[in-house]
Amino acid sequence: MAKELKMPPSVMEGPAGTPLSTWGDPKDRKVVGKAVPRRGALDKVTGRAVYPYDVHLPNMTYAFIVRSPRAHARITAVDTAAAGKLPGVRLVLTPFNAPKIPWTEERLLFDPMVRFVGQEFAAVVADDEDTAEEAANLLKVKYDELPAVIEPDDALKPGAAPVQPAGNMFNGKPEVYQRGDPEKGFAEADLVYEQTYTTSVQHHTALELHGCVALWEGGTLTLWDSNQGVHMVRDILAARLKLPINRVRIVNEYIGAGYGSKNGPKTYHVIAAVLAQRVGRPVRIFMTREDNFPTSHHRPKTIQTYKIGVKKDGTITAMTYRLVGQCGPYKENAIWGVRGGDGTRLLYKCANLRTETIGAHTHTQAPIPCRGPGDTENLYTLEILIDEVAEKLGMDPIEFRKKNYTDVDQMHNEPYSSIGLLESYEMGAKAFGWNPQKPGSTAGPKKRGSGVGALLWHGTATEQSQAAVVLQADGTAQLLAGMSNIGCGTETVLCQVAAEELGIPADAVTISLGDTANHPYTVNSSYGSRTVSLASPAVRNAAADAKRQLIGLAARLMNNKAEELELVDGRIRSKSDSSKGMAFKDVTAKMGRELIIGTGRRPANPTGYSVELFGAHFVEVEVDTETGHVQVLRAACAHDCGRWLNPRLAESQIQGGFIQGMGMALTEERIMDRRSGHQLNANLHEYGLPTSMDVPAQIVAIDPGTLDLATNTNVKGMGEPPVTGAGGAIANAVYNAIGVRIRDYPITPNKILAALKAKA
Amino acid sequence: MAKELKMPPSVMEGPAGTPLSTWGDPKDRKVVGKAVPRRGALDKVTGRAVYPYDVHLPNMTYAFIVRSPRAHARITAVDTAAAGKLPGVRLVLTPFNAPKIPWTEERLLFDPMVRFVGQEFAAVVADDEDTAEEAANLLKVKYDELPAVIEPDDALKPGAAPVQPAGNMFNGKPEVYQRGDPEKGFAEADLVYEQTYTTSVQHHTALELHGCVALWEGGTLTLWDSNQGVHMVRDILAARLKLPINRVRIVNEYIGAGYGSKNGPKTYHVIAAVLAQRVGRPVRIFMTREDNFPTSHHRPKTIQTYKIGVKKDGTITAMTYRLVGQCGPYKENAIWGVRGGDGTRLLYKCANLRTETIGAHTHTQAPIPCRGPGDTENLYTLEILIDEVAEKLGMDPIEFRKKNYTDVDQMHNEPYSSIGLLESYEMGAKAFGWNPQKPGSTAGPKKRGSGVGALLWHGTATEQSQAAVVLQADGTAQLLAGMSNIGCGTETVLCQVAAEELGIPADAVTISLGDTANHPYTVNSSYGSRTVSLASPAVRNAAADAKRQLIGLAARLMNNKAEELELVDGRIRSKSDSSKGMAFKDVTAKMGRELIIGTGRRPANPTGYSVELFGAHFVEVEVDTETGHVQVLRAACAHDCGRWLNPRLAESQIQGGFIQGMGMALTEERIMDRRSGHQLNANLHEYGLPTSMDVPAQIVAIDPGTLDLATNTNVKGMGEPPVTGAGGAIANAVYNAIGVRIRDYPITPNKILAALKAKA
Repeated sequence: MAKELKMPPSVMEGPAGTPLSTWGDPKDRKVVGKAVPRRGALDKVTGRAVYPYDVHLPNMTYAFIVRSPRAHARITAVDTAAAGKLPGVRLVLTPFNAPKIPWTEERLLFDPMVRFVGQEFAAVVADDEDTAEEAANLLKVKYDELPAVIEPDDALKPGAAPVQPAGNMFNGKPEVYQRGDPEKGFAEADLVYEQTYTTSVQHHTALELHGCVALWEGGTLTLWDSNQGVHMVRDILAARLKLPINRVRIVNEYIGAGYGSKNGPKTYHVIAAVLAQRVGRPVRIFMTREDNFPTSHHRPKTIQTYKIGVKKDGTITAMTYRLVGQCGPYKENAIWGVRGGDGTRLLYKCANLRTETIGAHTHTQAPIPCRGPGDTENLYTLEILIDEVAEKLGMDPIEFRKKNYTDVDQMHNEPYSSIGLLESYEMGAKAFGWNPQKPGSTAGPKKRGSGVGALLWHGTATEQSQAAVVLQADGTAQLLAGMSNIGCGTETVLCQVAAEELGIPADAVTISLGDTANHPYTVNSSYGSRTVSLASPAVRNAAADAKRQLIGLAARLMNNKAEELELVDGRIRSKSDSSKGMAFKDVTAKMGRELIIGTGRRPANPTGYSVELFGAHFVEVEVDTETGHVQVLRAACAHDCGRWLNPRLAESQIQGGFIQGMGMALTEERIMDRRSGHQLNANLHEYGLPTSMDVPAQIVAIDPGTLDLATNTNVKGMGEPPVTGAGGAIANAVYNAIGVRIRDYPITPNKILAALKAKA
Repeated sequence: MAKELKMPPSVMEGPAGTPLSTWGDPKDRKVVGKAVPRRGALDKVTGRAVYPYDVHLPNMTYAFIVRSPRAHARITAVDTAAAGKLPGVRLVLTPFNAPKIPWTEERLLFDPMVRFVGQEFAAVVADDEDTAEEAANLLKVKYDELPAVIEPDDALKPGAAPVQPAGNMFNGKPEVYQRGDPEKGFAEADLVYEQTYTTSVQHHTALELHGCVALWEGGTLTLWDSNQGVHMVRDILAARLKLPINRVRIVNEYIGAGYGSKNGPKTYHVIAAVLAQRVGRPVRIFMTREDNFPTSHHRPKTIQTYKIGVKKDGTITAMTYRLVGQCGPYKENAIWGVRGGDGTRLLYKCANLRTETIGAHTHTQAPIPCRGPGDTENLYTLEILIDEVAEKLGMDPIEFRKKNYTDVDQMHNEPYSSIGLLESYEMGAKAFGWNPQKPGSTAGPKKRGSGVGALLWHGTATEQSQAAVVLQADGTAQLLAGMSNIGCGTETVLCQVAAEELGIPADAVTISLGDTANHPYTVNSSYGSRTVSLASPAVRNAAADAKRQLIGLAARLMNNKAEELELVDGRIRSKSDSSKGMAFKDVTAKMGRELIIGTGRRPANPTGYSVELFGAHFVEVEVDTETGHVQVLRAACAHDCGRWLNPRLAESQIQGGFIQGMGMALTEERIMDRRSGHQLNANLHEYGLPTSMDVPAQIVAIDPGTLDLATNTNVKGMGEPPVTGAGGAIANAVYNAIGVRIRDYPITPNKILAALKAKA
């Protein structure tokens, strides 16, 4: 860490007002910081894990959601006669016989106006899945087709088909941020450079499709649902259905990933609830893979234009930035089209800066957060720009970045609670063996090159949370911390935190997740890389509270005062005479029926500090100049995430995130028909998700050793940053290999071959 | 209540040391004392409830336990060749190839020595249930048969076949209790009467058979198991298997009753765990109905002899009592054969008393507690004796009972914490219209008669317990209280208790039970009518703690001091100005993520008081003197159980218990072959369980209005007493109808016809 900042005592507030100890150096810890195996791994690899997709109830029915094949139309009639006659069909709901359930202010759940290909307007319930789909195909729908605009650049042109009544620009005007005087800064520069970059739509492509099984029992609705947060879905769904919170139960012991696409309630939740109530039987709705592409949202498409001024010594004197993002047809979720820009505003020291973000409404599905939303799109382009400018100045790209390093949040004029960016550059470069060649200098058709990219991610966890720890007679413990298990190993690290505080082995702590009826809520939904930073301080406090109570019991048993006892190495012993003591297990054995339940809260973040995560990726690629194929050979990824609670799981997050980022950089893209609004590659084969053949042989995860002091567990978060750093480093490595810049993601073979041809 | 006793303040200790308020008169309560519908009732009547019997896992195998057809034998060989060759058979374990797993000090899990018909000695696992049973039938077993003794009276005769090495009397001698000088008492009596009565084996006959599904996942064992207490089974099973508690998970959302037969671990739990580990697949073991009779234990058979001395005015001057109970072959569970006697020792004032209980070891399955163990067998006979003596004295049986009433525990010389016995006599008699005829005085062949019987049951709940209450943003609450849901509505009344304390409606509180992985333990097992009296005070305290925290939050929001606020009618308001306040829901809405978790403990019972439950049953029967058939026409049952938390559920317990007691009084009996030790009626058809045709049209439940002060919820318990009172009242009514005493339960048509013939 650059320096230790003085945090208020509230951060370390423990049970009964006493402060928690500082955990300090990772090597002093017995459980935290160790590569404890992931819980549930065996269940997953043996196929025993039950995902919501696997839930089949007796007497279940199957729903098929009928979706618009038109980008913009008014549905004037739906003839259900043939569908209704099909044996096994139980219910057909259309805009003309369904209850008028508002979804947003702008549309009903089954609305006759459809504004993107894939918008749901009807549903069929049948005794089996095939019949439901067959009946959906038998619906005779009359569309009154209306003009549509599909691409964001088209949408902002005069005369474009109108999407929103007030015009196609989101909120009617650009959102502007400015500090200092960019014009003055450009005037002071030795070099002014201007460039435009684009990023494509990336789909989340969670392996488990979106869907749920809905069951009404009396007035209580249970959904086995693949989502990122059972409590968030429960709370919002209860409000939508006008049910008390405790009449909605959401269950998912496992989910097959979400990456942002399974956060909060979706239309299908309400549809499943309504259909199940209508047919009086459980209803299963799961998307097909084809339907999942146009309806489960995505990372937005963006067009980003920079102008940067630099002095000869590398000092950035001014920057302007313009982002045009694709926002979809509705106000709902439109904001997620224009979230990029924090990287530009924060990553490099720049006193004179102006950013302008512009949303374009189009007749396409709306974007939503996709792992690393905003920062990913932004950093993928910013980090090419920085590379380009460094080259123009004849500087090493790391030296240029270090020259413009800052440890202050320039938007809020606050110090960062911790920053491990310089260490990420240095340790990453060392691990990688950073020594880039002259661009395009490899001989032969297969050209290798290296690139670097920096990253940041906003630490969004600031709220309080709570957890409980129950001690059991044999010295094991049960952790009560409600959340969903979205696959990143949260449950493993939370048990480590409780075990560390209690001084017991990691596997002596159990936890179960993913059921609102059983688990009091700790984190409402797992998004924003915040689950561990929200939950772990509460878990630590709950364990500390249980420990406090256990020491109290030991004091009574040992005829001593609690304040004269301490828990060391699994023994509660006298501070003055360490030979007097009792084993942890012997004290818990004396609880009898009076089990100890410790409760704890996460203290709110201290004010006056900004929490951000940093890192740097280093990548080597090989480009086949005859086919245009790019193979990433290896990567080294340094991530300042605060304390690494479990290096094995941290490595796994970093590797998974890097690969997902690599997909966006090289292969993944939504190919749209500009006239009809149909996606032309809505399947796994043509979409371009990386496979095991594309994954580099080595992705080294590097811990720069930051210990953040804003939480009592010193964590910041690590789910998303590994995506944000991949693109820039890969794009720069491709340039270093072939000597030609590609500024339009994904960097596909076509683009490489065209650029090489143009250069030649 | 006879009088209000001064309890120590610890009984009412609430959160943060402040006392809880006294709940006082039932009419002052809003939720507690109301006939709130039973939770889960809809699930049960619609067949949606999932019992352990309903659990089927992918790749499951089926086990069949092989049982001895000999009452006493040494197994010398088991030829498994044919069984092993049957397609689909996965494993055959016998005494000769199974691991030597001790079950008790006296026997192994698969022991070559068998000491009762039904003792398990081998198991087969196969891909389906039929194959497993077929393979079991293919085993060729060689028995070295040994002499056996089946009946308790035979077992105690000189020269009887030896069961235990030290002789056939349990513990080698009678257990004797004496106070005063019985001989002196008999000398003072005007009348001395001596009589012997017998009771038969009663089977629990839970509708769901005994069994479980066992699954190993890594080192963790999960059992979906039909038991009365997931935590007790978990804890003991973990100890037996030498696993940490948190590597054993026991699950049962519903169970199809237990009545004492599903309390704690059974051999089949360990067998299932061993088999599942051996075959590497889930194993399902459920008894057949035929196997369930000889292996799921039962209420013991007893022979009870009384001698009583009374003065002309009805004063009892002395009693002696001798009980011979059947204890089975082993020390294990033998104690349950000789638990009768507390009724004799406590129910009537008697200064000179001696009781002697003698256990007889036999080559039959051991007894275990069966709803109302000990007291039921005892009261069924004592209450005939009392009726006989009252008649001899020419006294009304109620007057005779009142004459010998006492409100002191004569064994411990302590006052009862509460006693509603006199009220039970009076309110019961009034509700019933008590006005018995002269015995046998009805004209015609169908003779009607009325009878009364008193009862008591020992309140065994004294330990602490704990629970937690989580408040949710919309003003609903989640109750965390771990136990099994054995079907008596515990979960409903616990939610009522939490709701009452929080001032919210009953259905605003949810609870879920029956999963050790999710529910911290409150009551280890539901037995002894103690679940509600153990759990409800902890639940009340947890709700009070949540309320305290919520008032603290309201104080911050209202800029007031917490001690100046109170929760009244769903509002937290100023004590000095009731117009200033906030609705409960508006305060919970302000919790944000900082949910309130209240925790609470049950204070230990106060010392110096004895907690017993009392009551009186009144019954009218019609006896067909031509067929001997007895039809119970109606009953009125007054039960001093402390506060009735839910009169609908209390009535349901009383009706169910009365019917079960009626079965024991009139029809249920184990018919044994005295030579072979085989039960001759091990099926529902011949065993004689009452059916809907036997149930009286009216069973009135009467609340004598006792409010026990030994717990903060004023409850004592009510699961078992309704059984204990039925027999004596029915037997006395039969006598009142026909004028002849039957002293041998069950009072079957054969016995009635024989007695009538003997009288004539």
